[in-house]
Amino acid sequence: MKLAVYDNHRIGVVEGDQLYDVTNVVPFALDALPAQRMNWLISRWPESRLQVLKLRDEARPVPVASVKLLPPNPAPPHVFAAPANYQKHIGELGDRVVTKKGRTAREQGFFLKAPASLVGAGGVIALPKGSTRRFDHESELAVIIGKPGRDIPRGDAMKHVFGYSCLIDATMRIEPGVAEEERSMRKSFEGFTPMGPYLVTADEVADPGNLQNRLWVNGELKQEANTSAMIVGIAELIELVSSVLPLQVGDVIATGTPEGVGPFGPGDEVRIAIEHVGDMTVHVRERDTISPRPY
Amino acid sequence: MKLAVYDNHRIGVVEGDQLYDVTNVVPFALDALPAQRMNWLISRWPESRLQVLKLRDEARPVPVASVKLLPPNPAPPHVFAAPANYQKHIGELGDRVVTKKGRTAREQGFFLKAPASLVGAGGVIALPKGSTRRFDHESELAVIIGKPGRDIPRGDAMKHVFGYSCLIDATMRIEPGVAEEERSMRKSFEGFTPMGPYLVTADEVADPGNLQNRLWVNGELKQEANTSAMIVGIAELIELVSSVLPLQVGDVIATGTPEGVGPFGPGDEVRIAIEHVGDMTVHVRERDTISPRPY
Repeated sequence: MKLAVYDNHRIGVVEGDQLYDVTNVVPFALDALPAQRMNWLISRWPESRLQVLKLRDEARPVPVASVKLLPPNPAPPHVFAAPANYQKHIGELGDRVVTKKGRTAREQGFFLKAPASLVGAGGVIALPKGSTRRFDHESELAVIIGKPGRDIPRGDAMKHVFGYSCLIDATMRIEPGVAEEERSMRKSFEGFTPMGPYLVTADEVADPGNLQNRLWVNGELKQEANTSAMIVGIAELIELVSSVLPLQVGDVIATGTPEGVGPFGPGDEVRIAIEHVGDMTVHVRERDTISPRPY
Repeated sequence: MKLAVYDNHRIGVVEGDQLYDVTNVVPFALDALPAQRMNWLISRWPESRLQVLKLRDEARPVPVASVKLLPPNPAPPHVFAAPANYQKHIGELGDRVVTKKGRTAREQGFFLKAPASLVGAGGVIALPKGSTRRFDHESELAVIIGKPGRDIPRGDAMKHVFGYSCLIDATMRIEPGVAEEERSMRKSFEGFTPMGPYLVTADEVADPGNLQNRLWVNGELKQEANTSAMIVGIAELIELVSSVLPLQVGDVIATGTPEGVGPFGPGDEVRIAIEHVGDMTVHVRERDTISPRPY
């Protein structure tokens, strides 16, 4: 199933280019915290799935193009991310990256991105106004957790996956010796984590370890790789994160970017497409507002 | 007012050593997501405050000692944290820290801690079983955000503060050249962010920029400083974070540690006390479970 969050945090089922409103599967009580609806639905999925299908059958379809898509989980408890997880990416940015040569996600562990940096398909990666820094695209498969857990061995890990989405890990690069801010901040500017267009449930992705992942800037192919080239695979990433803390329902794991990372700027359109998972475009814009701090 | 979260995410008002249950101020609907109750209450504080006082008057007090305290906001959207924010702390750890000499929170920006690493007063900082790494205490004032905002100038920033709490930023140190994991992971192990004992509303803290902050290990004073020695003050930290992304209701900002940072190990008791904000003790234990990964 393809699940969307749209407009005022409504929940929809997507089939082709049509969307069916199934928001009523979530208790009205959650109207007080609409961004939490998807966390709630994922946590109750086994007992809610049939009701979702029933609501879909009753709903009048609307074109997906007529709604505003939000990230398919707008308020995950965490966005974990794997650095240095494709061999050919390691080293391609020279001294503009902080991970030392030879280190992979296995040695580095995860970093965190701010959930407030998420944006949906068609949304905006918002660059600080007037910045002269370099901002890059990173094309990644996102894993969304369905079943909480701690110390999950990799052999059991895939049972904890609820589904998948496309994720762009936008990044402000360091300027060595000049500006070397914390990684988690450089990757958490507003709109720096486009995710979408939908959340595709795990049953629709036969082999997440064998998916073509492509990213284009203004129609030009910049990144292309297969998830089979990940150094630390999805199951081992789940083992890694859950060895540190309890994985929670709705958590997102960004599985790392392959080679081809490069800069974008105001006016660019960035498109990501992952086989069986989705295809979305987002817009790069400079903010209208002057920040109280320069970046 | 002193607000506590306890037992099964109930909400209480604390006066002296007595606690008054005011959970019913939060709609029953939120029983579906009890960890979100404090975010809801903070977001509705102006219209809910009188109801909280009414419920306190009606409640039968119970001793605080008879309940299990949780972090006073158990599920903040983010835990932002300031590195290198007290001059005398900078440099004291030699090459065991990743922030370069001369850099402060102003240049470094914020890092993120995982909300799942939060634990309440009396809780446990859980060390990986059998680890030979060094684990340190960092004694910090936590700021809890009440009013969302973006690009908040420091002159307006204090209006966005809902209250304060004590926070210990527990950290696994790097071993230079051997093990240099991501900062956000080294600080996000389960229990590595004790926060509490209560959330003290801003009206009870006349000058948050002038509070003694002390931390003891097994009764021995290890850290002592005044928040007046912060390099980047609370208002500027709010300006900094909100220049990157929208600050959300319930967000926590850990304002950085003063000098005196040092190691702790299994069996230790760590106590933090901040004037007008609170006093709490947590326990350091090795986990019973062997992790699928060594740390």
